Amino acid sequence: MSSIDMQHATCQYRPERSEKGGVLGLNRTDGAVRIAVAQLPSAGPKLDVNLGATIDAIELAGAAGNDLVVFPECTLSGYMFASRAEAEQVAIGLGDQRIEHLVRACRRASTVAVVGFLETDGDALYNCAVTLGPDGVLGTYRKQHLPYLGADRFVEPGRGEAPRVVTTPIGRIGVMICFDLRFPESARVLALQGADVIAMPTAWPQDAVFLAEHVTRVRALENLVYLAVADRAGDENGTAFLGQSQVVSPAGEVLINAGNDHGVFSTEVDLAQARRKKLVMIPGEYELGIFAERKPAQYAEITRPVESSTREAR
Amino acid sequence: MSSIDMQHATCQYRPERSEKGGVLGLNRTDGAVRIAVAQLPSAGPKLDVNLGATIDAIELAGAAGNDLVVFPECTLSGYMFASRAEAEQVAIGLGDQRIEHLVRACRRASTVAVVGFLETDGDALYNCAVTLGPDGVLGTYRKQHLPYLGADRFVEPGRGEAPRVVTTPIGRIGVMICFDLRFPESARVLALQGADVIAMPTAWPQDAVFLAEHVTRVRALENLVYLAVADRAGDENGTAFLGQSQVVSPAGEVLINAGNDHGVFSTEVDLAQARRKKLVMIPGEYELGIFAERKPAQYAEITRPVESSTREAR
Repeated sequence: MSSIDMQHATCQYRPERSEKGGVLGLNRTDGAVRIAVAQLPSAGPKLDVNLGATIDAIELAGAAGNDLVVFPECTLSGYMFASRAEAEQVAIGLGDQRIEHLVRACRRASTVAVVGFLETDGDALYNCAVTLGPDGVLGTYRKQHLPYLGADRFVEPGRGEAPRVVTTPIGRIGVMICFDLRFPESARVLALQGADVIAMPTAWPQDAVFLAEHVTRVRALENLVYLAVADRAGDENGTAFLGQSQVVSPAGEVLINAGNDHGVFSTEVDLAQARRKKLVMIPGEYELGIFAERKPAQYAEITRPVESSTREAR
Repeated sequence: MSSIDMQHATCQYRPERSEKGGVLGLNRTDGAVRIAVAQLPSAGPKLDVNLGATIDAIELAGAAGNDLVVFPECTLSGYMFASRAEAEQVAIGLGDQRIEHLVRACRRASTVAVVGFLETDGDALYNCAVTLGPDGVLGTYRKQHLPYLGADRFVEPGRGEAPRVVTTPIGRIGVMICFDLRFPESARVLALQGADVIAMPTAWPQDAVFLAEHVTRVRALENLVYLAVADRAGDENGTAFLGQSQVVSPAGEVLINAGNDHGVFSTEVDLAQARRKKLVMIPGEYELGIFAERKPAQYAEITRPVESSTREAR
């Protein structure tokens, strides 16, 4: 992991962090937090190699004053598999000691981390992302929309309807994964459940340029949330990934874009901007309450069961 | 209207139109139709001047073989008003003879038109777009999301929950208006109701660049529909409008962008592309049924009533 450097896209390193707000922002009254996305290479299906790189990056992110660091999809397990049996070999349960290793790293680094992995639960296999803090697991999310690609050919879709937004000491974090981005409903549900930041582990193939250039920005803007996307860069098992990990502001502004580089990229953000849910053209005079102006009674079609969902083949 | 020229952004004029598929595509078995967006200046609150320009543009669009022509928001009435009383002076009911004049123009031009106007219905005032064909009114849509700008300060929001997609001889046309674009629910509902084309009259102020550059493309891609946006260009009552009328493909590709020019801009499209609802990576082998992969049971939050919708001020 020595090749992974801390990169500061929009802010300088903050040695004064401990003076500013205390550990994990617990004493902060404003919404200023520091968010990182870790654009790592994948070692493929080598659980402990990937775990080591993830722990290193958590510590690197913490040392640079980050309150949250987001990792790629299936970063512990790798993403490219030829069979379900291969995928199962690197899948772990939430009780696995490796999860505890990550919690300890978060404790040392005083940060929250969102880490993608393949999860086993009984006979089921899920593409999961876990939100971890210094004291343990804060939340898990099992990917709902599956693109029949990589590991997603062999996992079940997540079915949880419970709120997916986790309240952490630094703010409310919602999680979605990769292909979920194409479905406007995923980010919308998280925003309606109060997410300040949507953390999105992904494994974008190289042709996912439209997603990285347009869809991320629109999802952030239409929901007035921060969107922190962590992608892998480089090859895994012959498949090249796009990189372009990014943090986007509620105004749709790209604050960080990691390009093709490996590293931990970070920026300071103001979560108060994600909580206002208003477009302010002229302060106090011309402000649009984007969420207040929603018309839920008109949107019934969106939750209506669709026959074709069982009829059409993937 | 002599300054308005027919402009062909991606295709040449088709003198062979009558040989190709008959009037309004009635005999067509494929999904090839020709779509135009009319980027007109506004004469302000001068109903009959705007009506004349609209009729001229319908005839121009028809002569160039277009099956559908979309006009800007409130194109008959103008959009900028200082009071409700001013807006009411140029609002008309659906039974107004001017609507019949437009129908006759559609008949002469063998085309469908989507035209924005201010509608009176009893004491109510709406920002409306009517879909017209050679035989009469095919559908109306009253704008649901209001940005407290221009005419929208003085109208009621549309409340219709009925299907808003009109089946015409050339395909299924759904309508939304301007600010609706920011709400992913609007285009989603239209796509779920089977729209091949979303026609969107708009009145984008000059700073709406993000909407024109990113949001239109994402709405088309995420819903796998054509999006035909007609904006005004130039000034009305001291307010400058953006132009950038456009037609976007279901792949998120901008087929036409009118820039700042006045005129009728058109392109041929294949509606079959909007009906497939699949992303085809490798034909027959790797195809993603984007609509089949939706998980309506997970989206309940989107139709839940929100307290803040009455609490927050605009």
